[in-house]
Amino acid sequence: MASDPAIPASARRGRPRSTHAEQAILKATTEILEERGFPALTMEEVATRAGVGKATVYRWWSSKGTLAFDAFLARFLESQPLPDTGSLRGDLLAALRAWIRTVKGTATGLILAGLVAEVQRDPRLADEWRERFVGVVRDHHRIMLERAIERSEIPPHCDTDVVLDLLYGSAYHRLLQSHLPLTDRFARGVVDIIVDGLTIGNGGT
Amino acid sequence: MASDPAIPASARRGRPRSTHAEQAILKATTEILEERGFPALTMEEVATRAGVGKATVYRWWSSKGTLAFDAFLARFLESQPLPDTGSLRGDLLAALRAWIRTVKGTATGLILAGLVAEVQRDPRLADEWRERFVGVVRDHHRIMLERAIERSEIPPHCDTDVVLDLLYGSAYHRLLQSHLPLTDRFARGVVDIIVDGLTIGNGGT
Repeated sequence: MASDPAIPASARRGRPRSTHAEQAILKATTEILEERGFPALTMEEVATRAGVGKATVYRWWSSKGTLAFDAFLARFLESQPLPDTGSLRGDLLAALRAWIRTVKGTATGLILAGLVAEVQRDPRLADEWRERFVGVVRDHHRIMLERAIERSEIPPHCDTDVVLDLLYGSAYHRLLQSHLPLTDRFARGVVDIIVDGLTIGNGGT
Repeated sequence: MASDPAIPASARRGRPRSTHAEQAILKATTEILEERGFPALTMEEVATRAGVGKATVYRWWSSKGTLAFDAFLARFLESQPLPDTGSLRGDLLAALRAWIRTVKGTATGLILAGLVAEVQRDPRLADEWRERFVGVVRDHHRIMLERAIERSEIPPHCDTDVVLDLLYGSAYHRLLQSHLPLTDRFARGVVDIIVDGLTIGNGGT
């Protein structure tokens, strides 16, 4: 279903680094976060697991907070495919299902909810979050809508930001408020209303 | 536009209280929260402002946390009308506009975002939140959809939970992620896609 690769790590970072060491460090960080959570994370253990010197970890990440954020980013972005099924309905459903698989009942889901919470009281993290997470994910997912416009499935004046807010906003809502589970029936319901509203209506203007 | 009153406070609480004293305490709490934020809130100042004894405040609220949550609830719920414009589009747009007015650039919006954040790490607050906030607001707003079903504007099998997630989930998304502003264009775009999707499509099944 997902013909395109996930967002490449190289597109997301400015500082040049040894890719092999960087990946090993991020992988070790993710493992520790998933095994024992953020409080148990130490730069020492990350360095040992990754087979690099502690100085290498500190050269690229100033704190375990920035390291945890980067580890989450790499892992999360790689889990989000860019489906190309040939129809907007198929693409949005595949993308939403992938998002639900990544967060539902998983350590990644807990870390994501925890980061959104942290963003509410840390303005510096909020800036990083918008620039390096929200913006990147949205640009990635927007391609599904641009393809639908090219195929004339939806009108060219379609407000793609509103569509992305409807699709992922409703999913984040269930993740953060926990009032109802992220079921497949939910995913289908969300996608059906959005696609019907876009293709038969006027595209949200 | 909003013919019905907001959610009555009496429907939301089990313990019998002196309504006058309770309202005075909640009002004083809200004022302090909006003026100086949660850290500056003390039971003493609330009692003084409300013109009641400190013992009265402690009899009904065990901590300033529960008091702040109640003060927020009363204030927020009263700000959410139940529009009855005669059409689903009119109702959803009026309700979403009221929500945006309440949270956009306001102390209430900051407190709401802060409470959603707190819910991510406090399971007891999360239970209270779902029961006394999310559940109450959703039941209130669901009436707009039930009226649209009665008017045969949307099919009777419409999944009202999915519709509420689309409407408010997309709005919470902009509030919590702050990637884009809660504009009126956003409100109209969200409502148009949902209503077009529901009335022309099959209602999300």
